[in-house]
Amino acid sequence: MTTPLPASAVAAGSRHADGAFLRACRRQRPRHHPVWFMRQAGRALPEYKAAREGVAMLDSCRRPDLVVEITTQPVRRYGVDAAVLFSDIVVPLAAVGVDLDIVPGVGPVIASPVRDRAGVAAIRSLEGDDVDFVTEAVRALAADLPVPVIGFAGAPFTLASYLVEGGPSRQHLRTKALMYAEPALWHALLERLAALASAFLRVQIDAGAAAVQLFDSWVGTLSEADYRRHVLPHSAAVLASVADVPRIHFGVGTGELLRAMGEAGADVVGVDWRVPLDEAARRVGPGRALQGNLDPAVVATAPWGVVAAAVDDMLERGRAAEGHVVNLGHGVLPETDPDVLTRVVERVHAAPVG
Amino acid sequence: MTTPLPASAVAAGSRHADGAFLRACRRQRPRHHPVWFMRQAGRALPEYKAAREGVAMLDSCRRPDLVVEITTQPVRRYGVDAAVLFSDIVVPLAAVGVDLDIVPGVGPVIASPVRDRAGVAAIRSLEGDDVDFVTEAVRALAADLPVPVIGFAGAPFTLASYLVEGGPSRQHLRTKALMYAEPALWHALLERLAALASAFLRVQIDAGAAAVQLFDSWVGTLSEADYRRHVLPHSAAVLASVADVPRIHFGVGTGELLRAMGEAGADVVGVDWRVPLDEAARRVGPGRALQGNLDPAVVATAPWGVVAAAVDDMLERGRAAEGHVVNLGHGVLPETDPDVLTRVVERVHAAPVG
Repeated sequence: MTTPLPASAVAAGSRHADGAFLRACRRQRPRHHPVWFMRQAGRALPEYKAAREGVAMLDSCRRPDLVVEITTQPVRRYGVDAAVLFSDIVVPLAAVGVDLDIVPGVGPVIASPVRDRAGVAAIRSLEGDDVDFVTEAVRALAADLPVPVIGFAGAPFTLASYLVEGGPSRQHLRTKALMYAEPALWHALLERLAALASAFLRVQIDAGAAAVQLFDSWVGTLSEADYRRHVLPHSAAVLASVADVPRIHFGVGTGELLRAMGEAGADVVGVDWRVPLDEAARRVGPGRALQGNLDPAVVATAPWGVVAAAVDDMLERGRAAEGHVVNLGHGVLPETDPDVLTRVVERVHAAPVG
Repeated sequence: MTTPLPASAVAAGSRHADGAFLRACRRQRPRHHPVWFMRQAGRALPEYKAAREGVAMLDSCRRPDLVVEITTQPVRRYGVDAAVLFSDIVVPLAAVGVDLDIVPGVGPVIASPVRDRAGVAAIRSLEGDDVDFVTEAVRALAADLPVPVIGFAGAPFTLASYLVEGGPSRQHLRTKALMYAEPALWHALLERLAALASAFLRVQIDAGAAAVQLFDSWVGTLSEADYRRHVLPHSAAVLASVADVPRIHFGVGTGELLRAMGEAGADVVGVDWRVPLDEAARRVGPGRALQGNLDPAVVATAPWGVVAAAVDDMLERGRAAEGHVVNLGHGVLPETDPDVLTRVVERVHAAPVG
């Protein structure tokens, strides 16, 4: 990304520095508990479904007007403390020419899975103008929104799992096969994907994103030893490249990886709903904030009394962390009643900061 | 089960008491490290595929000749230290009249999902002669096999998840909805399923099973607080009812539940591949043995050198446990080369007992 950063974006990036979200990321005391939701811009919202009507997922990510509208919707409705860019982790892959589609009800499907040296070599670098639609959308959002914009990218392991498997996978067997049997090729693949993720995050930061989240959604399938050996150096390279903004690092089922994910260079470690935040704080250790961790299924299915008790318990346990960004422990489920999320935001904002 | 226990079965149950598997379960020092594999009788074996040819899964579980043959196959091939009965956790549900099928590539599919009081009330008790095919098979196996037979059952939560969802599920949303929104109905359902699991295990013990494993495969989707409140008492009731044999309790993704699962009454807590055994021993605490925990994906995909190193690391960390039954951290994957499992058994048996 070579376009110089416009003054408006700089202003947008810095004008929220004293806001609750960025303060909690930096382990400073916020005036209220900050809260946003992974997949807050998504199928739980009727206005999202209306905006997406007749537009394929990848196409919607490439239309700045739609990206701005969809990214803004949850800010408008819920009053959350941050806006996560509406996009998809495979957008930069598609932008450098990987033939893929996001199939409704399935997820990303890769036309030619990557399993050999030629496949790895074919993944070219991302140039800023490959994703100028992202630049345009983030600039507009950063200039206009009352809250900071969070940019995001898929982490090298999770991107690799889609590329190697050819789509979503339960066991990640082909991915693990490549990792164990062809370590040189594995590391070459992850280096390329790390460069891609870094470049994609840099585009968003240059356009005004005030923080970034690196999603390693499926890395919880690995033991800590395998994570440290085969994944951590590449995620660390991505995170080191964007040290000018707060960096959130998240995956699901990562109870045993929390410390290592913090060591990868995250300022904020995302925690799923299985690990209580006080235990997560113990595992992550000092010098990091935490993000999370309501069970999205509780929010989607439980009566309000159960949800409210879960919110209170999470806030109480979150006091053990040096900073706490309230979120779910994974993305908002499409079955969620948006009014419940509104009440969660109200309850979080009304709670005393310890 | 009212049929009196034949002398041959009693002999079968006790004649392995000094064997490595039962000694490790009882936290006594075995002469060698005992090893068996979850789903050792299954699709990784060509002789299994030959035996199952043209026979539907549920039908195969109901034919004692096939059950004996398939249960015996891995003992014959691998030289494992225990034989787990070839069956399925939905067999007792089908035996009491729940209309279900095991669909290849999908799993159990329930014709009429259970979501109300009438559905719960319709689940009747299991009588011994509902599953006389199990009695017949276990008697033959216990009398003839050179190693103990492990009986098994699905735990109440995992059985409930199939019944409520109508089949396998990623998010278990309907299950959680019932649990949170209708706790009285939830507990009524789990009580019935606990009684069913107890009765199914009792049939197997009466026929000569020398140990049992209670599978709560999907319970790792719950936080510890929810597990303790909504699940543990029912699993504990099952385990308490079979205290006359060693009881193994296992689930996947249960890193945060290990202590609670031990408190449910297990003699041996099964550990998936994500939690190193020394850390698992710390969480489970004294008075329990551990079972596990090679990554099935490593065994299925990695070169032998990687597998061998994983075996050695597991054995080393397992020294922290008061007893260690070697196993995978989940079932054998169909893609596994059986020769690799043979080498794993050889390596485990050759390793010094610490």
